[in-house]
Amino acid sequence: MGMGLLGASITLAISRGGLSIKTVGYSHREETRGRSRELGVATVIAETLEECVREADIVILATPIRIFEGLFREISGWLKPGCIVTDVGSTKTEVHRWAAKSLNREVYYVGSHPIAGSEKRGVEFARDDLLVGARCILTQVASTHKPSLDLLDSFWRSLGAKTIVMSPRQHDRIYAMVSHVPHVTAAALVNATGADSMPFAGKGFIDTSRVASGPSNIWMDILLSNPENISKGVGRVIKELEKIREAVDNHDEAAIERLLEKARKRRSDLIEYKVRNKELF
Amino acid sequence: MGMGLLGASITLAISRGGLSIKTVGYSHREETRGRSRELGVATVIAETLEECVREADIVILATPIRIFEGLFREISGWLKPGCIVTDVGSTKTEVHRWAAKSLNREVYYVGSHPIAGSEKRGVEFARDDLLVGARCILTQVASTHKPSLDLLDSFWRSLGAKTIVMSPRQHDRIYAMVSHVPHVTAAALVNATGADSMPFAGKGFIDTSRVASGPSNIWMDILLSNPENISKGVGRVIKELEKIREAVDNHDEAAIERLLEKARKRRSDLIEYKVRNKELF
Repeated sequence: MGMGLLGASITLAISRGGLSIKTVGYSHREETRGRSRELGVATVIAETLEECVREADIVILATPIRIFEGLFREISGWLKPGCIVTDVGSTKTEVHRWAAKSLNREVYYVGSHPIAGSEKRGVEFARDDLLVGARCILTQVASTHKPSLDLLDSFWRSLGAKTIVMSPRQHDRIYAMVSHVPHVTAAALVNATGADSMPFAGKGFIDTSRVASGPSNIWMDILLSNPENISKGVGRVIKELEKIREAVDNHDEAAIERLLEKARKRRSDLIEYKVRNKELF
Repeated sequence: MGMGLLGASITLAISRGGLSIKTVGYSHREETRGRSRELGVATVIAETLEECVREADIVILATPIRIFEGLFREISGWLKPGCIVTDVGSTKTEVHRWAAKSLNREVYYVGSHPIAGSEKRGVEFARDDLLVGARCILTQVASTHKPSLDLLDSFWRSLGAKTIVMSPRQHDRIYAMVSHVPHVTAAALVNATGADSMPFAGKGFIDTSRVASGPSNIWMDILLSNPENISKGVGRVIKELEKIREAVDNHDEAAIERLLEKARKRRSDLIEYKVRNKELF
């Protein structure tokens, strides 16, 4: 469900695998269904939500997070017993809660978060190799059905992703800092910069602010479904900004050098780690 | 003076022009002088500062900013009357002040800031096309010698840069927001992120934090020579972060969307502007 960049890239990647798995795509927008058919991104583009899910062995929600809860409720009665339900949302704690509340007990929910995508959006940008080399977090709670988790783990790996399993809480704490807070920081930086200065922005500003170009509705959902971690994380960034500002105000050379050098060193360690793990191309 | 990435790229670019202009490079480090000779980045690598500047028609300081004041004092007596002195420092107000105080009145100082470079450093990374398409700000005050300004303007243009003239105050106000504050923000983001989360950082975090990998001594000099503008700019980023945090804390959907959409729109305008002006490749 959801024929955006990620949803359509998943169906394309499945088809590329040549496993003759039938993929059924759905979008609530007629225009997107038409475009998806033209581009041939799935075996079938269903005309209704029921048609999309009623024969499915695996259901994948690739819509904005905010409509997951309603979708769970809507599709629950149509799903085959034993069906596995997952999603590609960027936050996981709330989604697990909604699934537990709204899906019937004969189907199995497991959370997924493939770390793939770009600031581009829409079925036009779908690529069958989007998941190759990407990390994919699988989330489980105490009640998670282990065989379904294992099956989804194999599924994502077969599309080229590198999987790792953790709790939704741990996921949301980590991704607040490495993804959601950077987005907020980029947006704050852009909003703080006067229109008259903008034309002088160079590569540094453009890179630092890139994620702020992401679709605001998707990001609003992320912010609303992981508020505590994001609020705490933004607070930590503010604290670090205040440390540097104070050092600048006091002309405290030693403190400035220490703070900048700490950041330089940590980022250089990160890049080394990513290169070593072949996660940077 | 200064055979780093930028200094050596300038001498290489001059040689590439085929104008048979003699370039004389200097580094206070013997190792860098040796390496610069091996790589042939200038016509001559001088052994002393005096040898470097005594015959010069144009002197370019490409060292960290903090030593400009001392260098002005040191070279002042060796310069030919009518010599033009400039620099490539990322802040300009202080440098104009130092030049006015320390250079003798028979030479002409004009500020330059070529917006080129990378987070890489050292003569090994020098490229003869580093300035092609780059902006170069020239700074003048009331007492600036107009013919020298015009000559430097032609000089930077001949190396492929797009020049623009403004006051050092305007320069420092603008570049605080589009360059110095983004650096501080990137460093704060990295310092706020726990080491346990780091391995999960994706393309978004890596781009948002890229500038934090810049050499800390260079950036310390920038922070120390433009403290008021940077402090004010960091304050504006903190204020914008607080706005988003407050909207998240209050689950204020309308405010979150407005703040994210404002940033998305402004950045998209910026990218359009840059593409239209062929400043993005």
